[in-house]
Amino acid sequence: MDAANDDGSAAIVKRLRDGLVNDWNILENVFRLMQREETFWAQPQQWDEGKIVEFFQPEKLKQLINLTVTEEAQAHSLDEIEQLCQLVIKYSVKTSHGRFHNQLFGQLDPFGLAGALITEALNAGAYTFEVAPVCSLIETEIISSVRKLAGYETGDGIFAPGGSTSNMYGIVLARYKFAPEVKTSGMFGMRPLVMFTSDESHYSFKKAAHWLGLGSENCVAVRTNARGQMRLDDLETKIAEAKARGGQPFFINATAGTTVLGAFDDINGIADVAERHNLWLHVDACLGGAVLMAHKHRSLIAGLERSNSFAWNPHKTCGVPLQCSLFLTRESDKLLDRCNSVEASYLFQQDKFYDVSYDTGNKSVQCGRKIDALKFWLMLKARGYGQYGHLVDHAINVARLLEDKIRSRADRFRLVLDTHEYANVCFWYIPKALRVAPEQETEEWRQRLYTVAPKIKEQMAYSGTLMIGYSPLKSQNLGNFFRMVFTCFPILKDDELDFILDEIERLGENIVI
Amino acid sequence: MDAANDDGSAAIVKRLRDGLVNDWNILENVFRLMQREETFWAQPQQWDEGKIVEFFQPEKLKQLINLTVTEEAQAHSLDEIEQLCQLVIKYSVKTSHGRFHNQLFGQLDPFGLAGALITEALNAGAYTFEVAPVCSLIETEIISSVRKLAGYETGDGIFAPGGSTSNMYGIVLARYKFAPEVKTSGMFGMRPLVMFTSDESHYSFKKAAHWLGLGSENCVAVRTNARGQMRLDDLETKIAEAKARGGQPFFINATAGTTVLGAFDDINGIADVAERHNLWLHVDACLGGAVLMAHKHRSLIAGLERSNSFAWNPHKTCGVPLQCSLFLTRESDKLLDRCNSVEASYLFQQDKFYDVSYDTGNKSVQCGRKIDALKFWLMLKARGYGQYGHLVDHAINVARLLEDKIRSRADRFRLVLDTHEYANVCFWYIPKALRVAPEQETEEWRQRLYTVAPKIKEQMAYSGTLMIGYSPLKSQNLGNFFRMVFTCFPILKDDELDFILDEIERLGENIVI
Repeated sequence: MDAANDDGSAAIVKRLRDGLVNDWNILENVFRLMQREETFWAQPQQWDEGKIVEFFQPEKLKQLINLTVTEEAQAHSLDEIEQLCQLVIKYSVKTSHGRFHNQLFGQLDPFGLAGALITEALNAGAYTFEVAPVCSLIETEIISSVRKLAGYETGDGIFAPGGSTSNMYGIVLARYKFAPEVKTSGMFGMRPLVMFTSDESHYSFKKAAHWLGLGSENCVAVRTNARGQMRLDDLETKIAEAKARGGQPFFINATAGTTVLGAFDDINGIADVAERHNLWLHVDACLGGAVLMAHKHRSLIAGLERSNSFAWNPHKTCGVPLQCSLFLTRESDKLLDRCNSVEASYLFQQDKFYDVSYDTGNKSVQCGRKIDALKFWLMLKARGYGQYGHLVDHAINVARLLEDKIRSRADRFRLVLDTHEYANVCFWYIPKALRVAPEQETEEWRQRLYTVAPKIKEQMAYSGTLMIGYSPLKSQNLGNFFRMVFTCFPILKDDELDFILDEIERLGENIVI
Repeated sequence: MDAANDDGSAAIVKRLRDGLVNDWNILENVFRLMQREETFWAQPQQWDEGKIVEFFQPEKLKQLINLTVTEEAQAHSLDEIEQLCQLVIKYSVKTSHGRFHNQLFGQLDPFGLAGALITEALNAGAYTFEVAPVCSLIETEIISSVRKLAGYETGDGIFAPGGSTSNMYGIVLARYKFAPEVKTSGMFGMRPLVMFTSDESHYSFKKAAHWLGLGSENCVAVRTNARGQMRLDDLETKIAEAKARGGQPFFINATAGTTVLGAFDDINGIADVAERHNLWLHVDACLGGAVLMAHKHRSLIAGLERSNSFAWNPHKTCGVPLQCSLFLTRESDKLLDRCNSVEASYLFQQDKFYDVSYDTGNKSVQCGRKIDALKFWLMLKARGYGQYGHLVDHAINVARLLEDKIRSRADRFRLVLDTHEYANVCFWYIPKALRVAPEQETEEWRQRLYTVAPKIKEQMAYSGTLMIGYSPLKSQNLGNFFRMVFTCFPILKDDELDFILDEIERLGENIVI
């Protein structure tokens, strides 16, 4: 007799159970499909043929794929399910196409994707050693290695589901050290706690200030210089102003690799200020942390060892599949643990048969936590930090080379900065109608120039040949320009840079300004 | 000439670039390896042979796998990398073994894992339509379908990296509606905001109260009845007390499926209280939300349609690979968007060439966000809600059947509750030395009984034949007992329940109390 007390239901359950052997064949089918469709990689020779995306407007796309889910199954056979998968792949952006430069991440590292497949198949949660014995140790190993890379002599860390959360860990930990009573009694009745970050820093600090109850007004934007770096004089001014208003400064964020310009704040200079005022120094190195492994460009992040904490996303520059974000702190004495732990007696029993210090869940704000360490670990085992260091250096070198090439097409392209610091290059394309004498480059001309990137972007989407992001820079009152970001993968050759500029010219030829 | 300006570095970069074609073969190799090792599934006939885990203590495990990462690569050939992968799989817990019942999740659904593979290979981020055209629409489709399933006539939602974060979304949204000025000016100087949740609810509410600046003391624990459900009289008392202390109640959490007992709070009763006091009602249905699809047990979650928001983790009961967590709200007027958006002009430009309302990133506290919708969508396309509903009903029926079987072994087993509400069953095993007459079941006897589960758990780990979690229940002053949780997968037959009880008896035979 089956457990289901209703005959119809029991029959359905039995059919589902008996069908599982066949259902599992979907895995082989989908794996083959992904290989056929070049979902995760194509050789450079094929970049000309394979489109990055077959772009359709949302309403049209809804007609091309039946997205609706209902009570009844809509794909009954493995063939039908595979057809659905094929449509999903067909109309998705091929982020691992070598000409996808639209975000802060690029192609995947094959060893990263291999690690991701194992992670998915093992489906472990990262809270306890008992459920994830190997992966817990791997997580600890990565944290300890990155701690040493950063020059922290002591410390602790945790993997978080993205940079926004990693940065929040920094703010929460700083607040806990500054005022541990917040953990129990909250911030009500306190004088405002104030944090400082540059006007070019990531928007997640404002979101965090809201979520954590500080309020966005208490996340003070410090002005940046022309290169996008935090101005130390303005930082001092803003701290003094906050104190004069009755606020309690407790936290400074320095950015190592801003989102748009790729600028690195002067960490040593900011650390001096932080020490003078006894403030926590966090470094948002989500983008630029990759230089920790670099051979030639490591100095960009000089002073990191003086910070109290930092965040780094190897899923950006390094080719680890999303998500892989690390939060590290130099603080010891189990500060991270004391800050975030609450008694969860069903999970973190103290009467276990192994050393419970290997249970990492207490340090986390999450409970069940996806394992993000294995894929990065496999990459590091296969290539070591050293080889990634060369790839990071190469990505930065290529960015400088693109600047050279842009300078040599000065009539058609213009750089936002003469030279950028990291693997970002920001530039305008100047279409024929806007190529005028310098004195004719009026405010009205600039406003027209700022409409060019969005229009070419549209052409890019429909042609599927190239994807590059664009952005304005409000802090410097600049309108839309292209932001090209190089990453460890694809490993580009010089001639690819010519293709990129040629293609922008080709797509920009016929746009109407 | 290569872009790298140093000959040694250039040669390494060239070698890495040329090596990529070969490197990508790792994917095929790892896929084959996972099939050989039965990483993701084994047929029931094989459960007897295949161990769930080869357990070793942490220090020993570190000797079995060289975990260290260094500057130099440590695995140079694809064979060596595959060997590493093999060790990782060998010593990891096979959570998809049919006898892994240690957490709130069990085996994977094959269609879920297939969707996860595609997700990893596509490696898209969920912030904009532009980068994830198909997956953004899929996310919206799932949110809208679950909203209807829940009985919300209007509303919105977002995927979050786990239940703790989904519950935080509820608290932050409730606070924003109660006091929108918190977003800009923070909570300083306010009378304490107070939230209420039962003493059997998940510990993430306390963590959230800390992170969000409310403080754990303002997360008031409401007492539960003997079945683990929130007591309405105590809720009224606690609200009155908070008001008397000068606090501002703003949020009640009802739990649909508590972590240990699987208890469902009386949502309708709590909704009456919430309406009377004008409080936001959130439902933590992370575990129990699966009954939304059930045919026979849907009534467990009656009243959900009256809540303002809820969280549901299909990665628990339903067999979706970690992570898949949904936050839903009944509130319209773009409340979620207004609550969480900040101006991020580099990402959410308003001058795009498509309808930017398809960009979902503004609603999220994250920036780059892993796509968690595709795998669940593929499952629903293949089976529909209806078939999962039968599997959820089956899991609950099986739990009731286990209770029957435990009652029929009354000398050796004892239930914590006569009957549980959901797919959880909590029970003690009574070893021979503790089988005494009722009047001899003293406090000292109970303290000895509470040491049994951890000892059998150790035996389970070393034998690798069965994994079941254990927990105390402090709110009712009960010590360790086994907590067995049934899930949609594995789809168990009756005789498997006998195996489970027999195996506990076998392992418990020789433990020393």
